[in-house]
Amino acid sequence: MTNPMIALIEQRVSANLFDATHELADAQIEELVRLATRAPTAYNLQNWRFIAVRTPEGKARLRRLAYGQAKVLEAAVTFIVIGQHPDHRALAERLRPFVDTGLMHAETASGWQESVRTQYADAKAARDEAVRSATLGAATLIYAAEAQGLSTGPMGGFDADGVSREFDLGPDEVPVMLLAVGRAATGNWPQKSRRATGEVLHFS
Amino acid sequence: MTNPMIALIEQRVSANLFDATHELADAQIEELVRLATRAPTAYNLQNWRFIAVRTPEGKARLRRLAYGQAKVLEAAVTFIVIGQHPDHRALAERLRPFVDTGLMHAETASGWQESVRTQYADAKAARDEAVRSATLGAATLIYAAEAQGLSTGPMGGFDADGVSREFDLGPDEVPVMLLAVGRAATGNWPQKSRRATGEVLHFS
Repeated sequence: MTNPMIALIEQRVSANLFDATHELADAQIEELVRLATRAPTAYNLQNWRFIAVRTPEGKARLRRLAYGQAKVLEAAVTFIVIGQHPDHRALAERLRPFVDTGLMHAETASGWQESVRTQYADAKAARDEAVRSATLGAATLIYAAEAQGLSTGPMGGFDADGVSREFDLGPDEVPVMLLAVGRAATGNWPQKSRRATGEVLHFS
Repeated sequence: MTNPMIALIEQRVSANLFDATHELADAQIEELVRLATRAPTAYNLQNWRFIAVRTPEGKARLRRLAYGQAKVLEAAVTFIVIGQHPDHRALAERLRPFVDTGLMHAETASGWQESVRTQYADAKAARDEAVRSATLGAATLIYAAEAQGLSTGPMGGFDADGVSREFDLGPDEVPVMLLAVGRAATGNWPQKSRRATGEVLHFS
């Protein structure tokens, strides 16, 4: 008997066709994001933000920036998954509830702040971490949605500058992925073939 | 009753302490990577590679490049999760099995190749996609391992240039994450606090 989570990972497909009559309540969208943010981030930075685009006006605006992809209109919601350049000043607040439990020493939290300050001083490292954190959040959102019987369609091809401008992203924010979530319509492709494991795995 | 996958997402912690007596067979490591590569990638690029470091020599070498983190030695295996700059020339081969099913037209596959060529001509876009794909693979590996009762410890802090050099990465390959996988020892921290959903979610 296959573990249900393994089956879900094995069988997931990226949906392109969604049932346009299906909607998600805001509380369901909030629950998806609550689960997405259980994903790990370096230093528990939680350097991410999610915009849930689910009104006809918002969808029409986002669709134009996603080269007209119909799933932005048809899926119940499309998330703009945003990564933020790590900010060591914000970290104290992110770690405080954990320091308050007594499990983490205040000195450790200060040390992490200093590590963040130096590790991401380089703009490339800061951007990489924004992309990494947002993608960990997006992947977790995908599996949370699939576990609830929903389908997901990640999109990497969109006008990132346009999205930043029209959805008021900050200068240190990167729109990393658009993620359509809803009920799949019929006619989606099955899962596309994967490379043989031996081709992508090496031992050391 | 909570869905088992939702529970797994909710309860996952990043482990720091691993049982050093626990080993994984190569076949178990292969199965984890087979599942990791079910993750989505843009255009089905599958622009990733995994090095499973599980010999004492390999672990010692990698530990030095990971600032001495003990979990590299103690976990059964630490994966170097590598993203590759998208290569439009490789895409034909990646899509061929799917074209052969008759579901995807050869012209569509050619169109995707051309899109990849133009979309990632910019080095920043190529690097972003390498980080994004590898992170989607890493996240999926995390959930596959957790579903099998294993624990995982992702690491972002390591000497990336050193890893590239000592583990023979190519010029277009980025070591995106180290991921320790094994059996957790006692004494790990519980899950660290997360920001309130309302702070990271906005509606449009």
